[in-house]
Amino acid sequence: MFFASDNWAGAHPAINERLSRESTRFAAAYGTSDLDKTVEARFNEIFERDVSVFFVSTGTAANSLSLASVARVGGVVFAHSEAHVIEDECGAPDFFSAMRMVPVEGESGKIDPEKLAARIAGFPQGHVHHGRAAAVTLTQATESGTIYSLDEIDALTGVAKANGLPVHMDGARFANALVSLGCTPAEMTWKRGVDILSFGGTKNGCWCAEAIVFFNPDLARDFAFIRKRAAQLFSKTRFISAQFEAYLQDDLWLGMASHANAMADRLRAGIRSLNSARLAWDTTSNEIFAVLDKASAKAAETRGAKFYDWPAPHNMPEPVRDNEMLIRLVTSFATTREDVDQFLSICGAG
Amino acid sequence: MFFASDNWAGAHPAINERLSRESTRFAAAYGTSDLDKTVEARFNEIFERDVSVFFVSTGTAANSLSLASVARVGGVVFAHSEAHVIEDECGAPDFFSAMRMVPVEGESGKIDPEKLAARIAGFPQGHVHHGRAAAVTLTQATESGTIYSLDEIDALTGVAKANGLPVHMDGARFANALVSLGCTPAEMTWKRGVDILSFGGTKNGCWCAEAIVFFNPDLARDFAFIRKRAAQLFSKTRFISAQFEAYLQDDLWLGMASHANAMADRLRAGIRSLNSARLAWDTTSNEIFAVLDKASAKAAETRGAKFYDWPAPHNMPEPVRDNEMLIRLVTSFATTREDVDQFLSICGAG
Amino acid sequence: MFFASDNWAGAHPAINERLSRESTRFAAAYGTSDLDKTVEARFNEIFERDVSVFFVSTGTAANSLSLASVARVGGVVFAHSEAHVIEDECGAPDFFSAMRMVPVEGESGKIDPEKLAARIAGFPQGHVHHGRAAAVTLTQATESGTIYSLDEIDALTGVAKANGLPVHMDGARFANALVSLGCTPAEMTWKRGVDILSFGGTKNGCWCAEAIVFFNPDLARDFAFIRKRAAQLFSKTRFISAQFEAYLQDDLWLGMASHANAMADRLRAGIRSLNSARLAWDTTSNEIFAVLDKASAKAAETRGAKFYDWPAPHNMPEPVRDNEMLIRLVTSFATTREDVDQFLSICGAG
Amino acid sequence: MFFASDNWAGAHPAINERLSRESTRFAAAYGTSDLDKTVEARFNEIFERDVSVFFVSTGTAANSLSLASVARVGGVVFAHSEAHVIEDECGAPDFFSAMRMVPVEGESGKIDPEKLAARIAGFPQGHVHHGRAAAVTLTQATESGTIYSLDEIDALTGVAKANGLPVHMDGARFANALVSLGCTPAEMTWKRGVDILSFGGTKNGCWCAEAIVFFNPDLARDFAFIRKRAAQLFSKTRFISAQFEAYLQDDLWLGMASHANAMADRLRAGIRSLNSARLAWDTTSNEIFAVLDKASAKAAETRGAKFYDWPAPHNMPEPVRDNEMLIRLVTSFATTREDVDQFLSICGAG
Repeated sequence: MFFASDNWAGAHPAINERLSRESTRFAAAYGTSDLDKTVEARFNEIFERDVSVFFVSTGTAANSLSLASVARVGGVVFAHSEAHVIEDECGAPDFFSAMRMVPVEGESGKIDPEKLAARIAGFPQGHVHHGRAAAVTLTQATESGTIYSLDEIDALTGVAKANGLPVHMDGARFANALVSLGCTPAEMTWKRGVDILSFGGTKNGCWCAEAIVFFNPDLARDFAFIRKRAAQLFSKTRFISAQFEAYLQDDLWLGMASHANAMADRLRAGIRSLNSARLAWDTTSNEIFAVLDKASAKAAETRGAKFYDWPAPHNMPEPVRDNEMLIRLVTSFATTREDVDQFLSICGAG
Repeated sequence: MFFASDNWAGAHPAINERLSRESTRFAAAYGTSDLDKTVEARFNEIFERDVSVFFVSTGTAANSLSLASVARVGGVVFAHSEAHVIEDECGAPDFFSAMRMVPVEGESGKIDPEKLAARIAGFPQGHVHHGRAAAVTLTQATESGTIYSLDEIDALTGVAKANGLPVHMDGARFANALVSLGCTPAEMTWKRGVDILSFGGTKNGCWCAEAIVFFNPDLARDFAFIRKRAAQLFSKTRFISAQFEAYLQDDLWLGMASHANAMADRLRAGIRSLNSARLAWDTTSNEIFAVLDKASAKAAETRGAKFYDWPAPHNMPEPVRDNEMLIRLVTSFATTREDVDQFLSICGAG
Repeated sequence: MFFASDNWAGAHPAINERLSRESTRFAAAYGTSDLDKTVEARFNEIFERDVSVFFVSTGTAANSLSLASVARVGGVVFAHSEAHVIEDECGAPDFFSAMRMVPVEGESGKIDPEKLAARIAGFPQGHVHHGRAAAVTLTQATESGTIYSLDEIDALTGVAKANGLPVHMDGARFANALVSLGCTPAEMTWKRGVDILSFGGTKNGCWCAEAIVFFNPDLARDFAFIRKRAAQLFSKTRFISAQFEAYLQDDLWLGMASHANAMADRLRAGIRSLNSARLAWDTTSNEIFAVLDKASAKAAETRGAKFYDWPAPHNMPEPVRDNEMLIRLVTSFATTREDVDQFLSICGAG
Repeated sequence: MFFASDNWAGAHPAINERLSRESTRFAAAYGTSDLDKTVEARFNEIFERDVSVFFVSTGTAANSLSLASVARVGGVVFAHSEAHVIEDECGAPDFFSAMRMVPVEGESGKIDPEKLAARIAGFPQGHVHHGRAAAVTLTQATESGTIYSLDEIDALTGVAKANGLPVHMDGARFANALVSLGCTPAEMTWKRGVDILSFGGTKNGCWCAEAIVFFNPDLARDFAFIRKRAAQLFSKTRFISAQFEAYLQDDLWLGMASHANAMADRLRAGIRSLNSARLAWDTTSNEIFAVLDKASAKAAETRGAKFYDWPAPHNMPEPVRDNEMLIRLVTSFATTREDVDQFLSICGAG
């Protein structure tokens, strides 16, 4: 019953098998091997256009260096107030981009387009004291477990483009959002106006595979230097390429995300039917936020369930009562139906 | 005949097997799992004292963040003029530490202690214009394939300590140096006055395993934040821990380094016996610098040998003639006797 | 009728005369002359304790380097959401300190102590993802023209100290606040728990005189290097010292601030008596925020009055109507009674 | 007998008078007043083309921000090994530009064009490990008191342009070099291929007046933000403009530099005629490096002469003997013939 995070899971056997095979041969270092080139080309197919792809070690690196690639002196980046780049990366985006993250509010973890426009308007061109607008970043799926619809993405990129700003998407859970929307990778990104993508594989069955995808090759002009100076150029890059090769083969990545989402659906349905628990708000990805009565939570923990307490946001539809607690549950490619059912059963008995 | 670099090799089967095993289970993220703690404790045994260990993704990250941990505003770091931190890391050490790397000369890739003392003296205390001395870093084995003797390390750390400076060792090829000297890890580091070590595993049979070892825990006080802000905290850290567990078990790491060095010895001996080649200078690690006549070099390349041309340093004992070229050859855990012999045979026939 | 800002004023004749005198002699550079030392000692008297004083070129430099002096990797600084360090310094505080500014709300431009405590609590110790609390900065007088009472400062420094955080005060309008409260410099700063002060002279009759005052000398240990690396060490520092010598002599600085405040009082009283204008909110410094009917504003501008339109904050007691506008008026040592009366007369006739 | 540095002098009466006049009026802040625009236009005349001019507080700021304006991630800047940006600015150029300063050797404080070309060649395009060439900076007059001829400047800018690199000139003593060469400002800068100039006024009779002049306006596109984020935007900028107005009026600046150079000529001639002293090497600016017998030096110091001991460079034509010392003497607009003659007389009697 490991629901603490999808990064508690291991790696998919197919990925592991591919890594093993890679380990037995020699090949050129620093991302110049044939395998590296093959996998880079694979991203062109996935996204239905020529893209520039760079591998890095962590999601924080992917986000930080994406923003560094559009850095302007005195620049500010607009992000949801609960975005990972603001809340959970220890200032790495600010450090690598030498820009400031400016929080924008919005319901359900999603940036409100009108509030975004108003925030951007607070940085009029040429007004040197405030700094200047430099980029917009949005997270898909969001940190609240919700997913932007294609129209919602359009609305945000529309505001950004109207202000001449590039758009970055933090796709740490890109695959979960994708299969939930049922669209293509292209439709969820560059066809909507997204310029740069943090394409995460680690949370979805790899052990360490994060890519930055530039849909606008011009933005990638300096990136080889940005990555190297950031100490993110692996000598044995091909071991990341190998993971991505297996990940993208035969839709493995989509299958893993579908499974994780299905397990989350099962959890959501189960929680809805319990007296001792309720969904804190609606989610459609592999993340669930639930209000549990404390007795049930304790019982589950005693039986080995892993999950995180979560700080209650100020705008919850229904407040958390004294005998309750808010928790986050995350499913992954490795979550089993048995784990889900056991958890629900314990809570139901609580 | 892959002699281009030891980072062209794959990963040792035992390491690969350990990774496979790790992939099948759930465990806590961000370096807090039991395995992470077990492996950290293993470093205490290896170094015969309580150390603080942090894993990062690349050797450049290990060096850069080591220096960042002793950063002082306006500080300068003294390094050999050909050191990796100066020549090959795209300014990452300067970027992460916000310090400057000051080159010190010395024969055979080794810092000359007298020149080090003179350089440090150029930064008198309280003279704000020049900046101030902040650290000394040395590479073991050196970028020239040579190895500091224990006395030579003593001499450098002596100069550093006399000036109140912490000492960092870039141990990208730590194991190769260690087995060459035939001493213990403790004897080659903290017993000589080294405070911080970049402990490299990637070049010696891991696919991605670099550690920073603090012998002085005080210096590690802020390091968790330094690493996180540098985007170097893996969510699935335990896959690095797993590599190191296998690496350090039953002296696997020492065995791999001994093998690489033995293959280099075989190459060295063979080259000494050739008319068409000679050693450019003496080395004792798994790196060899050889002067080959161009015909032999071409023949070897045609037959699939991989190696790098190398720029001739200005102080070579015997210059490279027009019909010759300087090349670097590096052996690894995966180099075979057959590869060595085939290469020598081609060159001998050239 | 120059009410745009107090930095539109020139320099006081006494300061100017002192500069002229200084220009005729030779003296040691980089802040080591006798005059520099004399003036530094003068700050000890002003603050009734041994302080460390450093001169810099701008208020932005004073704030940024103050925060740089307490920088911690991954650190965050708590400031009012409308503070100059957040709104008006183009990210310089973030750049020099490599920390993030975290906004805290509060009425009337003042940080609310409870909200400060809650914000700090959001950065629990050892939680590396969020970053860590590093400092609190407050502005006296505030950007809203209000002034913290001594008790209000106590409340904020109390929260900071309870969390082990140093406190910085942005005193760009320190003198105006001081004479308004009628207390001593010591009472408004270190006796309240303030550790570092940006002591501004430029807005109050100097042409370029900003000082950073460390009440805790330990915090100044590295500061000579911080300032030099920030390109803020003047070669002819003594020309800043000369300004401060005249500024602090015979209470000139207090006299100038009293005059500016008195002119603001006169403006406030006048506006209260007008039909065409009202005070947007109460202020007690030399800054006034007034709601004017547009006709009056236009008439004043036509007659040469200078002032800034101001964006209406979201929490104004009484909204700005369509035929009105919010403006900021600032008085200075050079503001005359005639200017004030003329402005009021024009508005009254409007 | 103040020969320690030209920044020990005060300010010229005409400059002082202009400042006094400026102090009595109100004007717009942050460099937007009429005076600011007038003085900016004056720079167009001085340089015979449209230039972009920005004022900053120190020479270190001028150099650092000039280099920041051409910053590239992973970039390196080529400078003479004894250049101020390497030796005397506490790493500020590296800090503001996030680039590394790479030393190039050359006789007499001047970069050797062939060595420059060789150094640049060490950073081949696309080789991410080394970093990449980003700019060349040269100092006119040099830190050794010598002056590049126009042909010598051509040679260096030629190498730079052949490699696509912008060229910065550190003109802390621009006027001294200019009057020594007897050419126009345009001939010594953009007509020779210089793109950016640190135009120093402080050492030549101002008290604080440093400008950055962009001959290529494209390079200045982001500069308003670079300066503001660097905390170098004075609120009362017009007091710098006022200094420059007086400085540039009726060739005051050229007159002051001519006087300083003439006093240096008189010193040089005197020293050549002494037995107790000799010129360490030839200089043609207002800086002199002399070898004095220690008795004479002591006698001069006893009588109040101020000068600096100087570390002997390794390549001096004639070594400094035990009874001698190397000193630096600098003249300025304020140096008198009497001071020079008294100093020579004391040394001659020694």
